[in-house]
Amino acid sequence: MQINVETKPVGSAAYDARKKRLVETIDRLYLREARAPLQKMISRIHPADMAAILDDLPPAHVVDIFHAIADTAMAADVFNQLPADRRTQLLTESSIEKLAGVLEHLPPDDLADLIGELPEDQREQLMALLGRDSKDEVESLLQYDPNSAGGIMTTDFFSLPHSLSVEEAIENIRSREDVEMVFYLYLTDEMGRLVGVVSLRQLLLTRAGTPLHKVMNRRVMKVTTDTDQTTVAMLVDKYRLLAIPVVDEDNVLVGMVTVDDVIDVIEEETTRDMLKMAGTSESETLTHSALKIATIRLPWLLAAFIGGLAATAVIGRYEEILGQVLVLSAFLPVIMGMAGNVGVQSATVAVRGLATGAIDVKDTLPLVLKELRVGLALGAFYGVILAVYGYFMHHSLQLGQVVGLTILGNMTGAALLAVLLPMIFQRMKVDPAVATGPFVTTAIDILGVLNYFVIASWIYKL
Amino acid sequence: MQINVETKPVGSAAYDARKKRLVETIDRLYLREARAPLQKMISRIHPADMAAILDDLPPAHVVDIFHAIADTAMAADVFNQLPADRRTQLLTESSIEKLAGVLEHLPPDDLADLIGELPEDQREQLMALLGRDSKDEVESLLQYDPNSAGGIMTTDFFSLPHSLSVEEAIENIRSREDVEMVFYLYLTDEMGRLVGVVSLRQLLLTRAGTPLHKVMNRRVMKVTTDTDQTTVAMLVDKYRLLAIPVVDEDNVLVGMVTVDDVIDVIEEETTRDMLKMAGTSESETLTHSALKIATIRLPWLLAAFIGGLAATAVIGRYEEILGQVLVLSAFLPVIMGMAGNVGVQSATVAVRGLATGAIDVKDTLPLVLKELRVGLALGAFYGVILAVYGYFMHHSLQLGQVVGLTILGNMTGAALLAVLLPMIFQRMKVDPAVATGPFVTTAIDILGVLNYFVIASWIYKL
Repeated sequence: MQINVETKPVGSAAYDARKKRLVETIDRLYLREARAPLQKMISRIHPADMAAILDDLPPAHVVDIFHAIADTAMAADVFNQLPADRRTQLLTESSIEKLAGVLEHLPPDDLADLIGELPEDQREQLMALLGRDSKDEVESLLQYDPNSAGGIMTTDFFSLPHSLSVEEAIENIRSREDVEMVFYLYLTDEMGRLVGVVSLRQLLLTRAGTPLHKVMNRRVMKVTTDTDQTTVAMLVDKYRLLAIPVVDEDNVLVGMVTVDDVIDVIEEETTRDMLKMAGTSESETLTHSALKIATIRLPWLLAAFIGGLAATAVIGRYEEILGQVLVLSAFLPVIMGMAGNVGVQSATVAVRGLATGAIDVKDTLPLVLKELRVGLALGAFYGVILAVYGYFMHHSLQLGQVVGLTILGNMTGAALLAVLLPMIFQRMKVDPAVATGPFVTTAIDILGVLNYFVIASWIYKL
Repeated sequence: MQINVETKPVGSAAYDARKKRLVETIDRLYLREARAPLQKMISRIHPADMAAILDDLPPAHVVDIFHAIADTAMAADVFNQLPADRRTQLLTESSIEKLAGVLEHLPPDDLADLIGELPEDQREQLMALLGRDSKDEVESLLQYDPNSAGGIMTTDFFSLPHSLSVEEAIENIRSREDVEMVFYLYLTDEMGRLVGVVSLRQLLLTRAGTPLHKVMNRRVMKVTTDTDQTTVAMLVDKYRLLAIPVVDEDNVLVGMVTVDDVIDVIEEETTRDMLKMAGTSESETLTHSALKIATIRLPWLLAAFIGGLAATAVIGRYEEILGQVLVLSAFLPVIMGMAGNVGVQSATVAVRGLATGAIDVKDTLPLVLKELRVGLALGAFYGVILAVYGYFMHHSLQLGQVVGLTILGNMTGAALLAVLLPMIFQRMKVDPAVATGPFVTTAIDILGVLNYFVIASWIYKL
């Protein structure tokens, strides 16, 4: 836990100005080949800021300036916080040998993630250069699903035998400067099984000679290596933990997930939800080619496209009506657009509510009834306006009736469907974020068009 | 920091089954009026779980069972984690006198939030019942903007004069059991100004007699009371802090924001972004009436509606063409829908990337160029299919050309606009989440319709 940090808030004008000055100074020192002053200047910058500075430097200078970071532990910290494209640049443009010393300092979980993303040949090259310990840790971490507790945990945790005394425990903490964050002391038995936990503060409150198992808390909140990362995040959030221990199937302590990993999980899951709702995927990254990105977005669009063609076919069947009442086609976009809009609103409220826990599956009926009323209210409002507009623009009472009734029906139906489906998906353990996806959207579109022409045939008596 | 927690993960089948059993047992004990066993059972449940249990109990029993929580500190903890509608129920159905003792145990920031939401008369009634200290704290917290560091900070922090010795500091920590979480010790001078920080772990590593100002870190990352909550969250996330101190304009330490508050801010901001993108607002809650919710969603829909009417007018102007080539109207929905879909994909990638920091404003040009290519690739793909479909369905080469070219142009334009606008908004310090809002959507719609008929007039030589 580093606390020696810059005091200007990220994103503030003062921070931006300061960062700009640092970028310029560092680049100037680099161009003048003033290596000693460059190293000294860099050593005083917080790793998180140094990563931001490297991102702003001319790409051609980045690799050299990165290697001017004298302290390999700091270099690892900086590397860890670089944007993906800069990391890729470093991995491709500097020799693996030169980087191995730096990467060895990465927390094992981050190192494993990185190695997991490398192409096969680079992966083997790097693994061969790692020390025995790092290699073993990485290999064991690589077995776990990246979205499980095992995949996000660090093996850099701190545990002690529960038979030690408080005094011995404190002595132990003093001697171990390398571990990431210590707030809870996990206590294990002689088989390495997790048996209790004690907070650093409790240690301070207890007399030196007391054995740890007398003061430890035996009901430890824990997860297993295969627990889903979303569940881990929910637990840490719900019980306001700073870290949660991870055990294997025999209750042997194998790692811990800290609250900063949980923040990453929450951001990642939210991004995934949002992209899923929009019909793309988190596998799309800035470094992908346009063609690759297009391929990722294509399937969702394809489903929507097939739905669109189906709508085209439906409209084609009613060509006769259209031929007689041409103006009906002018109202197609507004009628379909409004239903789509209200549907997205309802679905977003439901999907986000389920994700944050504000909405529970047991709320389905009241929620659906409420959305029914919301849809009716909005549909009635826009129905009346559209009816009046249709009547006055085209001096046709029939047109007014048709468009007014259709938009009322379509908006109500869309709101209803858009809240009902996420709730059903959640109950069926399907990700509710897909509920705004192609099938629902095109179902609303096709039913909406059909409704339009059925009402039109009826009112125009065609 | 409570670590005595249930060991079944939230949302797991085992947790659900256990919760269901507890709900049934508690309700049975309540109905049998077995007060002592009820209190004993409740006292063994974690507050976070008790809140979830209260949410599942029959609403008519909730108030009585809540008041069966013997320990007021636990009751406060439970209250704090109840869903909004249950909190409202407790506030309206139990006497303020009975609740005051419980609420006094809430962390000052949560108490202030709660009081800020109460109707005027209840607020005064409750304030009058609070102890002097709580009242002062709440009053000072209520002055701050709820979205600022002052609005989310707790005044329940732990600070010590920097003149103390390590030994005295440890003694002090031992004597203060009430403070929320201690991981950093904030150190102040005789004027209460923040001068340094020391971690609990550093205390353990230092000899007892050393004065704190000799070991403290002087470069403390801090924020002022008016710092925006998003900035606070970014700082804590970026520098991986567990808490950040909050100072006033004279650098006097007035509070701290902890990492769990930051998780709440991140979830709140994300929800706000998603709702904004969908055209509703976080002011919409489950407790609102359908009419109120409809009113909140109405403005965005109104803007889209006006855009829709404009599109109607545009189509109306081309009625002559439509009369001659009726089938053009059948393709309207698919052409507009596809452009809208690809636009939402591009906008979501940009908005979310900006929010998580994966995308920076300086990436505008490469990103826009990439989306241009993505739009072209997708537009070409669907253009060819639609052209072929149009040709074979209606045996018209002209129709194929019109629909193919239009969808190519509209999808490319939509992708371009949908990524360009969020980037421009971000640069102008306008929330990029509004970029998927009504103006952009309807602009894409209207331009799309226009493009359709312009291409149609040209190809059909009308």
